Amino acid sequence: EDNKQISIHESLNNLTEFKLEKILYNNTNRKSICLQGVFHNSKEPALVLLEKTGFTETNFNGDSEFFTEKSSLKQIFHNDIYGNYEFLPKLELNSIGATIIHPATEKHIKKYSIQNVYLVDETPALYEEVTLPHITEEQFDLQWVYNILDHKSEADRIVFEDPDDTDGFILIPDLKWDGKLESLYLLGLVRVHGLKSLRDLTAAHLPLLRNLKESGTKAICEKYGLTAAQLRIYLHYQPSFYHLHVHFTNLNHDAPGTKTEKSHLLSNVISNIELVPDYYQRATLPFIVREGENLVAKFEKKGVLTRGACRSSSP
Amino acid sequence: EDNKQISIHESLNNLTEFKLEKILYNNTNRKSICLQGVFHNSKEPALVLLEKTGFTETNFNGDSEFFTEKSSLKQIFHNDIYGNYEFLPKLELNSIGATIIHPATEKHIKKYSIQNVYLVDETPALYEEVTLPHITEEQFDLQWVYNILDHKSEADRIVFEDPDDTDGFILIPDLKWDGKLESLYLLGLVRVHGLKSLRDLTAAHLPLLRNLKESGTKAICEKYGLTAAQLRIYLHYQPSFYHLHVHFTNLNHDAPGTKTEKSHLLSNVISNIELVPDYYQRATLPFIVREGENLVAKFEKKGVLTRGACRSSSP
Repeated sequence: EDNKQISIHESLNNLTEFKLEKILYNNTNRKSICLQGVFHNSKEPALVLLEKTGFTETNFNGDSEFFTEKSSLKQIFHNDIYGNYEFLPKLELNSIGATIIHPATEKHIKKYSIQNVYLVDETPALYEEVTLPHITEEQFDLQWVYNILDHKSEADRIVFEDPDDTDGFILIPDLKWDGKLESLYLLGLVRVHGLKSLRDLTAAHLPLLRNLKESGTKAICEKYGLTAAQLRIYLHYQPSFYHLHVHFTNLNHDAPGTKTEKSHLLSNVISNIELVPDYYQRATLPFIVREGENLVAKFEKKGVLTRGACRSSSP
Repeated sequence: EDNKQISIHESLNNLTEFKLEKILYNNTNRKSICLQGVFHNSKEPALVLLEKTGFTETNFNGDSEFFTEKSSLKQIFHNDIYGNYEFLPKLELNSIGATIIHPATEKHIKKYSIQNVYLVDETPALYEEVTLPHITEEQFDLQWVYNILDHKSEADRIVFEDPDDTDGFILIPDLKWDGKLESLYLLGLVRVHGLKSLRDLTAAHLPLLRNLKESGTKAICEKYGLTAAQLRIYLHYQPSFYHLHVHFTNLNHDAPGTKTEKSHLLSNVISNIELVPDYYQRATLPFIVREGENLVAKFEKKGVLTRGACRSSSP
């Protein structure tokens, strides 16, 4: 018997069926919140991620509805030249981006819960002894990636495709992207299977990496008008899924996960491998782990992550 | 005679009288925008700052109006367990904060103007031909650094000092630090003069770099209780002043200038030099330049920074 239930995404028009159980995070800087709960017709957990949208500059052009009586101001106070107001624009000008994950797994819930972070200086030996076995054990399902690569999902969203088996890739909008130029966010998913992360890259992959950079940049420039100098092109370490992919974001956009402890610029990656063909098998790669992740306990056991006592974390 | 006109804040109910002239900034992360323009009844410039509001957790309690039919969802697409929606909550649940400054001075306008940034992939040749001559010409005054090193200024603020002429350094709170543990921010200033930036570092400096990491971490742990795994230790490229210094910040703090296009983790720097003694004389180092900086024009002249046409920025 087919035990697949009908997806909740087939018929959702509002959140009347959603029962909130817990707020996993509330980021007042980004104006985003993550709600955990259940839909009444299902016992499985659901995550509702809400994020206010950034402003679209073209919405302010000409006869913008921001500047009509349909968008009203309520004064809170004023002092000298400064006035403080509540602005209530026309409904459609002020939507909220929502991502709903259902059914959500324990891993999703952990991922979206906010915990303290710790830095690990991962030597090649630690990668072999701790990280690699961990990835092998706990790897996220990659079916959604293969669906995209096989044109089974999101085929109409593909921005660019190079079908080459070795050096090809698909360029597609990231789930987090609201479609605005100011916050441009695309993913380059490589066609080749089995490349997990930076750690697997060698001189053999230079043609693939250069192709991602050159063809990805060209496709984005032709479609969106941003040039190479206006793009942040990078890989995460650790990535959130272990099928090699490259992030393309608007350099002026403060995208999440772009800090130095998480992101590696593609041009730097290429330069490193040009200098040392097996750079990523020999370098120490620092990365962050989150409180509560299984990896934290594994590194603590190795003595490389100290939280209480004052001694160096270096082995 | 009293030349004060009646304040615009006495009677503002909407923005119908506002004529937009320029968008000064648009922050897609914070979801804030700053508009410059005039009100029809006044020639003096006005600034309208809009910022989406963060979510209020109490708004989700009990019979929240977010969870009624008044707040609707429009599906954009779905793939497997992930669904992407536009959420249109009840108007009052989704107001925008507005600050209106009128009349605004030149200083207000400058303060709220943000320049675009561009990425440059700096090869060693470009460093020699463009950046190094630029640094030599335009170098900021380093007297304030020498004053600290010579105990002529801020001597009472020193957190730790290693007086060694070659490998020593002074650890001191950064000017930006508010003194709270959550936002800990210290600088390590090396005693030796003449090291401008990452580009000058070779294997000869490994003892200095390791000392910065080990002794700096130890001093911070003893004084503030944060261990190595809780610190982000990094160098900027380009730095804001060309006397070698290392930033120590709380890893949980979202300090400015910690993005991958600007910051290099010290443990990674040490690993790079251990792999390749002259790594920083041979690697491509990407960094950002800001619209209006002299360096932008110099790189444009070299043809390495393209803003208009769709071609790669790589030489």
